[in-house]
Parts: sequence; structure tokens; C-alpha cells
Amino acid sequence: MGEFDLIKRFFDIPELRPGPTMALGPGDDCALLQVPFKHELAVSSDTFVSGVHFFADMAASQIAQRCLAASVSDLAAMGATPAWFNLCLTMPSADEAWVRSFSQGLAAQAQACAISLAGGDTTKGPLSISIHVMGWVPLGQAITRSGAGIGDVIMVSGSLGDSAAGLQLMQHQRDAADDLSKRFWNPTPRIALGQWLRNKATACLDVSDGLVQDLGHILSASGCGADLQLHDLPLSVELTSHVSLIQARDYALNGGEDFELCFTLPSHLVTQAQAYSKLKNLPLTAIGHTSTTLGCRIWAGDKGLFVPPKGYQHF
Amino acid sequence: MGEFDLIKRFFDIPELRPGPTMALGPGDDCALLQVPFKHELAVSSDTFVSGVHFFADMAASQIAQRCLAASVSDLAAMGATPAWFNLCLTMPSADEAWVRSFSQGLAAQAQACAISLAGGDTTKGPLSISIHVMGWVPLGQAITRSGAGIGDVIMVSGSLGDSAAGLQLMQHQRDAADDLSKRFWNPTPRIALGQWLRNKATACLDVSDGLVQDLGHILSASGCGADLQLHDLPLSVELTSHVSLIQARDYALNGGEDFELCFTLPSHLVTQAQAYSKLKNLPLTAIGHTSTTLGCRIWAGDKGLFVPPKGYQHF
Repeated sequence: MGEFDLIKRFFDIPELRPGPTMALGPGDDCALLQVPFKHELAVSSDTFVSGVHFFADMAASQIAQRCLAASVSDLAAMGATPAWFNLCLTMPSADEAWVRSFSQGLAAQAQACAISLAGGDTTKGPLSISIHVMGWVPLGQAITRSGAGIGDVIMVSGSLGDSAAGLQLMQHQRDAADDLSKRFWNPTPRIALGQWLRNKATACLDVSDGLVQDLGHILSASGCGADLQLHDLPLSVELTSHVSLIQARDYALNGGEDFELCFTLPSHLVTQAQAYSKLKNLPLTAIGHTSTTLGCRIWAGDKGLFVPPKGYQHF
Repeated sequence: MGEFDLIKRFFDIPELRPGPTMALGPGDDCALLQVPFKHELAVSSDTFVSGVHFFADMAASQIAQRCLAASVSDLAAMGATPAWFNLCLTMPSADEAWVRSFSQGLAAQAQACAISLAGGDTTKGPLSISIHVMGWVPLGQAITRSGAGIGDVIMVSGSLGDSAAGLQLMQHQRDAADDLSKRFWNPTPRIALGQWLRNKATACLDVSDGLVQDLGHILSASGCGADLQLHDLPLSVELTSHVSLIQARDYALNGGEDFELCFTLPSHLVTQAQAYSKLKNLPLTAIGHTSTTLGCRIWAGDKGLFVPPKGYQHF
């Protein structure tokens, strides 16, 4: 099957266009897209390499779901509305069953995110996937990393560490179907939350490299420090029933790819956030405060500063 | 050198931002871009794989120049003004000298095209490059592949076949510096021509897979056929002095990646095109006409239909 047949059959399908319409979709030199008046375009690109970002022998539908979700998460983190994406798919050979499964997973995630495939490229080579996501946000309302103020409350959505634990599970059993593994291969970009945070959060990002590292980006961009409470980290029952509390907290602090939002909120807005959390049945947990003292300190209740147990090996 | 250091040092530099400004550039979850009022966004993505689209041992600056030019060519083909691009760079290791050279080539091409780096991703893996280009075009003025009318004149810019010949030369001598090789590693996207063709050309694309194959896309999208004159194909002196006329015409018809524009023009506009050609010192050659009879026929003057010599092997 040639490139054009492949695109026509598995990618030029209505199931991959659940989101905003396009003036011109796939098939020409460029797609033509219309950003609404008084809105900015938000764009982000990610590459996912076989053996680095996913297992080559995962189901192709899972690979597609995971890659698109991770990409869309960057739009969510800006408070943007997902609109379109371009897919660059590089694979060693055009295996029809594999491409069909990939297309199905991609369509499922595109529908969940209401984002439309606008174009892309298929090439022959070592398996890897590059996704360029595009969305829009009302002019001046995007949430960057640099606006955190001193004394803001630091909050995170959902629970942390599940994806890292799920990854460990899948290393031993590739078709694991438990909740933790699913957090790895089918993460949920927090699109609605990101949009709700516009004009409320002072800074926001998605947790992709681990809470401590990612929060560090907000702190350095905003020129402030943070004090976190170890005991306030949101841990799921699935995680704490699967590993020790020490391991769970390590996953939560340093395990990446949860794709939850970490944001800073002026303290007078916390009540509103709690009401939103209840209404949407989505945990939003205060885990600390920003401060004038640079750096990130993690406090273990009345035991003072948290220091990882001596000789403890991160996963 | 880690990913963040690498980006900061070689990609987050003013030399890579010669084009339209950005509300927010590289370094956050997304870049924020403003498309002018009453303009559409034109987007295109391409992946270039080492050993497939370029030689791994070419100079990194040449790889960068070639990949960005090929990507921007898709904007030119729509009549769009290049604005921003995202770069996804996957490489086995972060070799500083290689990345420096890549960054220099990328900056040179970005400046030539007046396009700004908005963001992207660097990952570890087999060498490949995915580029997502974005530009804008006045609402409704983009030149698609589907508008060719019966009796339109088919024209091409520049000369054809040089890049295919240059590729052959580089297969034997990687650092070849002649004009043909340069057409392979440093093609010129026809940006100004594409914009001039707005509201004039009825269909347009860039020659990336070979004239016959690419013109076929215009013909099938527009529902018409074509009659081409073999003797009118624009061949450079460099090409005809390097290979036989038969080989030169084969390169011109079937060799790809010239990144010249092939377009259809109502016959009353040909004089205007000739004047533009003279003014800009850019050959624009009429090579045939569209017709109601489907398919693409190539005529060899009074010898009738062109048939490649028996047993002749395409390069």
C-alpha cells in the first residue's frame, strides 16, 4: 500500500475530524485554518520515539491514544481550546493491521479531545510519531508559566504518580489493563479545567517530566520559590494499594507523564476552585504555596524538611 | 548537554526569529501566535528521515537548510506568507558541533524565508527531523490544486531535474559543491512567486515527487487532463552539460525535489507572467495546456506522443 492509499484509507476519514471545521483539510500542499477573531493561536509539537516514549509492541491504538493525549495536554496547560493537529508518522513498513489499529486509537482520542486532523506526513523509517497541535485562546488570556505571584496557592488536578507506576507494570506485562497502566497509555488531557483557569490561575503547566521538575519551570519563569507539603500530594487508592507510601510519593514527586495540570492560584480563588472540583468530580488539591525564597522545599509535616531515605533509589 | 541547555544555546537565538513576531515564543507549553485579521492560517508538516531524505553524513547545516526549504515550499505553493515553524529534532546523541552546524544552517534558511522558530521538541532516537510550517494568506486567496480550468496554460518556474542530478552527484561525492548538488541541498522555495500568483493561477503546487506525478495531483483534483510539450521542459545549462538530453528530460519529468512551482494560468494572464519573469529574472516556462481529455500526454514535437526509449531505465 502506497503513502497516498494509506492516507486516504485510514486517515482521511470523518472520525478524525470531530473538532472545528477547516477551510481546507488534508490532501493539498497545506491545510487552511481559520482562527476566530480576537483569538490567538496556541501551537505545540512533540515527538514520540519507539523504545523511548512508548513500547514498540504496545497495541498501535494505545500508542496513538497516548501520543495525541500527551500533545493535546500542552494546549490544555495554556487554557487553549484544541482545534487541529498534524500527524507525522514514520514507520518501517506500512502494515495494514497496525495502521488500522493506530487510526482507531487516534480517532478515539481525537473525538475525546474534539480535535481535527488537518494534515501531516507518512514516511518510511524507524517508528516515531511527531504531532503538531493547534488550538486557540481569547487574546491575552493564555496561561503562561511566568505569572505566579508570591503567596499563591499551588494546586494540582487529579492524582500524581499513577502513570509512572503504570509504566512499571507495562514493562512486565505489555497488555496490562489495570487502572494504573491505563493512566500511562490513555492519559486524560485536562482541557476543560485549563479553560476554566483562564483569568484565574497566574501560571499553569502540565506535569510531563515530574512534579518537582515541572513546578521548577514555573518557579524560575516567575522568579519565586515554593513550599510544598509532602502529606498533601494527591495519591490514588490504586497507587497506594499497589506500592509502599514511600514509593508512591516518589512516583508523585518525580514520575512524569501524569498530564495533570499544576497551577498557581491567588488564595482568594481557592474556594471557587473547590466548588469547580466538586461540580466536575475532579480533585483539585492544594499542595503548597509560592514564596519569596527561591527553590522548592518539601515539608514532611512536623518532621521538617523532607529528605529521601538514605540510599533510596529513585525508580 | 541536556535538552533544555541545547535548546537555550542553539535554538533560542535571535537569528532564528527573522520573521513575524510572536506573542509568546519557545519555552512555554505552547507558542502563542497572532494570525492577521481576515487571513487564513496555512499549515503543513513534513518529516525527513536520515538515509531516506538526506545522507546522514551530509553537513548538518546542509541538512537543516534542505529540510526547512522543502517545508516552506508548501507554503509558497499555496501563495502563503511564511510566518512561523516548529522543529522536532530527533538525534542519537547531542553532539555539540553537529547541533551548532545544524542551528547555523537553520538560521540561514529561516532568514532567507523570513520565518521564525516558534517551538518544537528535541528527543533521543534515530536521526530524523519533523518540521511544521505555518503561514498566512488573505481569506479565500490561497491557491489550491483543484481550480485548474480547461485550456489553462501549464507553467513551471526555474528549471527542472537539477535536484535529481545533484542527488546523484552527492551519492558519489558527499561534499560536492557544484550548482546541481546545491539545488539538492539548498533548494529555493518560490515564496514571492507563490504570492504573486494569488488571484491569477487557478491551481498550483510545488514539484516534490516529480513533474508528471505532481501535475497528476492537479489534474485529478481539478478533473481535467493535460498535453505537455517535451521540448519545452526548462532544462538548465548545468544539467544538459552534465548528462545526455534523454537523461536530462527524464530527470525533469520524474526527478523530484526541485521545489519549483507548477501552476495553471488562464491564457490571458501569460503575458503578465512573462513580464513578472523578466522583472524578477526567474524563468516561467509554458510547458503545455490543460484539456478535457483525462490523463497526461507528453508530445515530442512532430514525432507524436513521447514514449521513453525501449529498455530505458529511469534513474
